[in-house]
Amino acid sequence: MRTTEVLFEPGRQDIVVTRGFAAPPDVVFATMTDPALIPRWWGSRRFDTTVEEMDVRRGGSWRFVTRHREGPATPYVFRGVYHDVVPASLIVSTLQFEMGGPGHLQLVSESFEPDGDGTRYVNVALFQSVEDRDGWIPTGMETGIRDAHDLLDELIGVAR
Amino acid sequence: MRTTEVLFEPGRQDIVVTRGFAAPPDVVFATMTDPALIPRWWGSRRFDTTVEEMDVRRGGSWRFVTRHREGPATPYVFRGVYHDVVPASLIVSTLQFEMGGPGHLQLVSESFEPDGDGTRYVNVALFQSVEDRDGWIPTGMETGIRDAHDLLDELIGVAR
Repeated sequence: MRTTEVLFEPGRQDIVVTRGFAAPPDVVFATMTDPALIPRWWGSRRFDTTVEEMDVRRGGSWRFVTRHREGPATPYVFRGVYHDVVPASLIVSTLQFEMGGPGHLQLVSESFEPDGDGTRYVNVALFQSVEDRDGWIPTGMETGIRDAHDLLDELIGVAR
Repeated sequence: MRTTEVLFEPGRQDIVVTRGFAAPPDVVFATMTDPALIPRWWGSRRFDTTVEEMDVRRGGSWRFVTRHREGPATPYVFRGVYHDVVPASLIVSTLQFEMGGPGHLQLVSESFEPDGDGTRYVNVALFQSVEDRDGWIPTGMETGIRDAHDLLDELIGVAR
């Protein structure tokens, strides 16, 4: 299952993303939480991403600045804090699009489960309202996630 | 409006609590974020609360241990991190009942708005599922919140 599933059911406040990776959870986790690797996958092929802060532990903060490669020079800033980090297993964090102002943030739970020789990665993003969630869907988010996961898959292939 | 409204609409993933306080936002905010005062209101009259950690700033953590005054000696532990803190105005944080395990946490947004000479306090707790939210309703949560806010109201009266 090396394709990314993106599920958003009508009326719900979450988006559930599932992806299989051909490496065990510790490798997938280490790759995804390495600040040096973030620019190579997180913003997909469409965005350049700079990691300003990424302290992956309970109470740590993260802040990424992205710029569209072929679009306006305006930076898009995303930031949040880590609520829980269990190596090779779980990350719970907040995510906010900084220019969106308060009231538009996500609670993100990422789990890494062994699946044969690989990993089943599940990302549940919980939004503050159904409208908030629905607002993300037409932004190219789905294509962006699939592309980011394909890039990540390549990095993981190198890391194995 | 010095009564506490607790609103949970069917099928939604949040609980919205609204309360008026007879003091301006900076006083209400300062009272609610003072670790030394937490034991006097947060756990209502039913629980003894000990503040183990309460670092009210972005990326700060909090951890409270409560014990039922007339119940079992088992401590109930709640903890989380602060995503955003704007003095006298806004607190966004996570809240987890530690024994509940992962997957049962809340994203809590608290706003303090001037309302005449007083404050309109709104607390929106967002749950990871409707079932999760519904599970909190029969726990005496509603009575507990009202009682906590009444105690807080008394403290605020002293602080004015």
